This record gives sequence, C-alpha cells and structure tokens, in this order.
Amino acid sequence: MDLKSLRVNGKRLQGSLEEMAKIGATPSGGVQRLALSEEDKRARDLFVMWLKELDLGIIIDDMGNIFGTRPGRDKSLSAVMSGSHMDSQPKGGRFDGILGVMGTLEALRSLHENNIETERPIIIVNWTNEEGSRFAPAMVGSGVWTGNLDRGWACDRLDINGNRFEDELIRISYKGSLPAGKWPVHAYYEYHIEQGPVLEKEGKRIGAPKGIFALQWYDVYLEGEANQVGPTPMAGRHDALCAAAEMILKINELPQRMGGNMVATVGEIQNYPNSRNIIPDRVHFTVDIRSWDDDHALKAWEMVWRDFDEIATRRGCPIKIEETWRVEHSPFDRKLVHRILNIAEELGYSGLHMVSGAGHDASYMNRICPTAMIFVPSIGGRSHVEVENTKWEDCEAGANVLLHAILQSANEK
Amino acid sequence: MDLKSLRVNGKRLQGSLEEMAKIGATPSGGVQRLALSEEDKRARDLFVMWLKELDLGIIIDDMGNIFGTRPGRDKSLSAVMSGSHMDSQPKGGRFDGILGVMGTLEALRSLHENNIETERPIIIVNWTNEEGSRFAPAMVGSGVWTGNLDRGWACDRLDINGNRFEDELIRISYKGSLPAGKWPVHAYYEYHIEQGPVLEKEGKRIGAPKGIFALQWYDVYLEGEANQVGPTPMAGRHDALCAAAEMILKINELPQRMGGNMVATVGEIQNYPNSRNIIPDRVHFTVDIRSWDDDHALKAWEMVWRDFDEIATRRGCPIKIEETWRVEHSPFDRKLVHRILNIAEELGYSGLHMVSGAGHDASYMNRICPTAMIFVPSIGGRSHVEVENTKWEDCEAGANVLLHAILQSANEK
Repeated sequence: MDLKSLRVNGKRLQGSLEEMAKIGATPSGGVQRLALSEEDKRARDLFVMWLKELDLGIIIDDMGNIFGTRPGRDKSLSAVMSGSHMDSQPKGGRFDGILGVMGTLEALRSLHENNIETERPIIIVNWTNEEGSRFAPAMVGSGVWTGNLDRGWACDRLDINGNRFEDELIRISYKGSLPAGKWPVHAYYEYHIEQGPVLEKEGKRIGAPKGIFALQWYDVYLEGEANQVGPTPMAGRHDALCAAAEMILKINELPQRMGGNMVATVGEIQNYPNSRNIIPDRVHFTVDIRSWDDDHALKAWEMVWRDFDEIATRRGCPIKIEETWRVEHSPFDRKLVHRILNIAEELGYSGLHMVSGAGHDASYMNRICPTAMIFVPSIGGRSHVEVENTKWEDCEAGANVLLHAILQSANEK
Repeated sequence: MDLKSLRVNGKRLQGSLEEMAKIGATPSGGVQRLALSEEDKRARDLFVMWLKELDLGIIIDDMGNIFGTRPGRDKSLSAVMSGSHMDSQPKGGRFDGILGVMGTLEALRSLHENNIETERPIIIVNWTNEEGSRFAPAMVGSGVWTGNLDRGWACDRLDINGNRFEDELIRISYKGSLPAGKWPVHAYYEYHIEQGPVLEKEGKRIGAPKGIFALQWYDVYLEGEANQVGPTPMAGRHDALCAAAEMILKINELPQRMGGNMVATVGEIQNYPNSRNIIPDRVHFTVDIRSWDDDHALKAWEMVWRDFDEIATRRGCPIKIEETWRVEHSPFDRKLVHRILNIAEELGYSGLHMVSGAGHDASYMNRICPTAMIFVPSIGGRSHVEVENTKWEDCEAGANVLLHAILQSANEK
C-alpha cells in the first residue's frame, strides 16, 4: 500500500482511551490513577494485554517501565521509541499522558493490520510515575532509565502514607528483572495534550514544541510570632502570612516585570497554627518559575530573592529558602520538530511552532537521543483537572502525525 | 482583723497554678486542655476537690458550668460572682483562663482561713468551653447561661472529629441536671492575663479595661481556575491564591488606613488543590476585625468589602463572604472599673485604664450584671502560645486586687 495514505483508526483510538478512562474514573468525569496504585496496576494489565495482541516483545524493567518492541527489518539498527505515561494527577483528566501511550498503540495497530514492515524496530513505552503526585519528584521512570536519576534513591521515595516506591512496585507486580538503563535510541516521540490554551487560541490543531521550558522549584519558609489577635496591636506584629502574601504577589508580577516568555506561580501554602484568632507564626509556600531562557529565569529569581529579603526584614519574619528542583531548558531536535510540522501540513492539519511550559519524559529522553513532541489542543486550556478535554478528531489528527513521524524515522537507514 | 490588711497567699496561688499546669502539660512548657477532653475532666475533678475543701455549695449545670457558693450573712442578697475558664487553646499557655479561676479560689481560701464573713454570697465559676478551639464558637458556657446562645444549638456543636458537644459533656461526667440559666448577680469579676503587650510596655502591673472591643468575624471564599502552571500563560489566569494574597494585605493595612483603636487579622487560610504545579482554584480565609467603636469597625468592613469586590472582579475569581460572628463592643460598669483602679492604687500597684481586644466570658456577663475585669501583664505580650508567661508576683498582685474587689462588692448592702 501507499504509506502516504495510511491513517490511524480514530474510532479505535477513542475506544482505547474510553476503556482506559474507566480505570480510576472519578464522579466528575476525570481520572485518578496515581503511580503504583491499584488503578495503575489495572491500566498496566490492560496495556500489556493489548501489547500481546500485537505480538510485541514485552520488557518490564526494575523501575516498572514497560516497553513493547515491534521488530524491524534490520536488526542492526537502533529503534524508534514513542510513548508517554499512564499515571495521573489526583483528580486529573482522561488525556494527560495516556493519549501518548494509546496514540502510539493505535499507530502500531495500524501498522500491524496493514502488515507494514519498517527498517528499524519501533518501541512503545509507558514510563513509570511521570506525574510525581504520589511519589515526588516527577518523571522518575524516564529519569532513571536515561541515567539522570539514581535508581536506589528513586526506589526509596515515600508517598504521603510512608509507602516506599519499590515496595509498591513489587506489590503491584511490576518490578521487572532488567535494570532500568538506556539503550541506543534513533528517535523518541511523545504525543501529548498541550495542557495550555495556545493552540486553541491560535486556532491550530497540531503543536510542535521547539523544546521544554527551564524550570526552577523553590520552597520558602517564613517564621513569625504567634499571638492572640485581639490584644496585640498592629505595630510590632510579626505576621508570617502577611509576609507570604506580599511574596506571592511578587511572584505573580514577576513575568510582567521581567518580560520574555516566563510563568511564575505559588501553588501550595501551609499556614500555622492556622487559627482565626492567632497571628500566623509559620508559613511554607512553593515557587515555580518557568522560562525558555535559563539565564532569564535565574535573573528573575535573584531579583525576587532580594524582594523577599526586604519583605522578611521589614516584617521581622526570618526567611529560609530551599532550591528543590532545577531543570535547564531542553531544545528538541530541530529536524524532528520540523518533520512534525511538515507531516501536519501534508495531512492537512494546521500546525504551530511553539514551546512546552510543562515538563515531560521527553525532557530526559532529549538528553540521550533526538526527540520531539506532538501537541493537540486542550479545550479551554484546562489540564490536571477533571474537566480536562480534547476533541476526538484532534486526538485522531495527532495520532496520524505521530504514525507518520514514527514511520519516517523507522525507515531511516 | 482589719480587712484592708488582708492579702492572698502568693505561694499557694503559684502552687495551684503549677498543679493545674501539669494537666495537659506540653513538652514546650505550655498546656493543651481542650474543652471536654480528658484533660479538661481531670482539671475539673481537681477543681471540684478544692472547692469541697472550702465547704462551698457546688452546682454543675447542664452546660457543665461549675459554680461554688460561699454563703453570705444576708440570704436575701444576690451574690458576687468571680471566675473564668479552665479550658485552653491547642498548645496554649499556663495562665489564660486558669489564672482567673485559681485567683478566685485563692481569694476564697484567704477569706476561709481568716474566717471572714461577707454580707453577700460569693460564687466562684468555671465556664465551659471559653476558647472555642475544639467546639466553635467561643464562650459557649457563659453564652448559654446568660441567655445569649441557645442550649440545644450549643449541645449540637461538633468538633473536628464529629464528636458532639453534649455527648462529650456526658462522657466526662460533667453534664449536671440544673438547666443553665442566669440568676441575679450583684457584680461579676474576671481576673485574666492581658494577652497583649500594653501593660508591659507602659510599665504597669494592673490593668482595668473599660470594656471589650467590638468583634467581627468573616469567612471569605474565592474561586479560581485550576490549570497546569507550566503551559498556562499569566494573562487569563484566575489564581484564587493571588486574589487572597491581595485581600490579606488589605486587611493588614486596614487599621492604619482607618485610624482609631482597631486590629484586623487573617489567621486562617485553606488553599486548593494546594499542589505546587497547579494554579489554585479555591481559597478560604478568615477575617477578624476588632475595634472599640462598632460603627468604625463596620465602616472599615464596608470599605474592605468594596476592595475585595474590585480584586475579585479584576482577577476573575468569584467571591462569597459570610459573616460568622459579630459582637458589639462591651463597656464595663464604670463604678467597678474605677474600683479596680482604686484598689490597685491602695495596694501600691501601678494601674492602667485600658481596653480589652480579646473576648472573655465577661462580655456575656456584662449584659446581665455590673461587670469588670482585672488584667496583669503578659511577658512579651505573648498569649495562646506555649511560651505564654506572667510573673508570679504579678499573679499575686492581681489576686490581691481581685480579693478586695470581691470583698467590697460582697459587703455592699
């Protein structure tokens, strides 16, 4: 058959996504499938069953990463890899992660039913614990596999109830024997929902991010002085929550102040003793700064740090700041990114050269092999929430782009 | 003996306070004796034992309020009442409340050992659940007794674990048979630590508050829109925590903006989903405004409400505000207040005419009978914390003032 006319089966892709969405379905239409939970296990079981139907060679490594290999004609060539993750945020959506795994599966099913051979092997992958919402940090499976995170350290991560990562992996029977570690990969593709509003706003169907934003995570700890509110005059108070409020607004104003492509957010705050008639004496909050330009982001943080110091001193609230995570910006392979845009055009889908504000397993893969991503629009730009949604025809469009990107890479000598 | 030369036994008072401080003692030197807890029961048992040693007539009403009556010469005259509360804040201090009960006990012990008779009966009281930290609201025992709160409603209050107030009262065996309800009272005194820094700052030992601040409690609920932080541009975000941060600062600036004797505080905040990489979509925080002038406080609130509306509209975060509690300012009986100051002077203690920013059972009592309070300095102005402290000689001084205030009122025909 003419490879150019090949298309995925959009209905079948929808069916796979709907089937997966039942596992951990929430009453409000979302999904809760935390890493290494019972729901994660059920999703993995179904996934492995589907891989077997395609006669793929299945490997599960000791981080629980699942690989399904479709052999190529030339055994001497390295494989093309494509996939994402099946775990979800607590009360997350039905597309984040799973779309990339089911999209790749659909591409493989299309090749299978049309008996299409490729030069290189094609590997579908499900990375363990991308979200990091149960076991911090995020992207642990791909992090260890690519040699960016230590296996022992990853195995010892604890969830909020004190359950150990490795114990939970064993409990759900997904600790394989093969040590997680990279093989040569010819190209890595990750198909994902955009999780932002840009494609929708620009009226485009396919996004080809030129790479992933640099990311900085900080934890800020403030100390104040607790007192009964009524008898304590305003002058001389050391109110840790007021200091935090000023800092939260500084973070919120930062992108406008700095210009450039940047977002900055305080998502988490803990206040103590958190009683309505006691002045807060202890506050912890998080800072998340993302930018395409690493130096720009660091300069922004230095500026904020000076502001924080001034606020803490003025309010008499000692401050402690920890850098929790820092990832440099990750520019994808130019050739692959343009391949995505070209394929989209050939297939008649409007495309957009953009950036990714969110982290993905693709950031780690990008360090070891040519990598690119395919984005499709998130309705209303909503993600990590139960109302997360993407049109079925967009899911199909993205899978078609993925199919042809995989095909082109897999037929490269 | 010459009544004027009568003094309490400071060492014995210290001993009673130290004995009580053992019940619910925290490792950091404070006390946790939540209303109707096991610790509250043990404190009550000890208190009742001490009342029995003085041959007082003991009454426990169906709200668990404990009264100990020392008869007067003239049975036709109404009693002088004095007391406070023995429950504490979580991780509270060793003086808040208990000082007023132990101070009154010490005054009665001094009368007892000197065989001093009074014209009127004297009643020592321990009010149930003044703090309201386990069962909201505060001042429940005195509220029902004075007819300001409904008994059935009070009995149905739940703690954070769903335990019912009345069930817990029965569990600790302190639900008496007499319905809680006021009797004629000739005068009510409440001896208490200041819980603020004013006496210490002014270098005075005895405070006589002219009354208690008006108090307004509000609960503010904000809605935002949750989204993955990375891919969501700053423009178009609806960040409920940023809206809250602006509002917290408006509350903090309010007293300076309004002038007059006012304090305003946000003590409690809940943020959802409270995840470092998700934009907050729901925030609840509390507002506590106190002022001597009711109209001034209400005007301040109206001004803040307009600010809140503007912030909520600008940030696209719908707002809901509930008035949780409102108490008008409570001016104490002028004659009794000046009596406190006169006695302090006669006993050689420096005195200060001041106000009380904190609520006390005395606010409810003030609605049904002539009422006054006696304050002694809080070291560093600290209260509702484990380091709460007051010098033993100040505890003794306040008890001496209380003793003579009770004596003078109890000998009035």
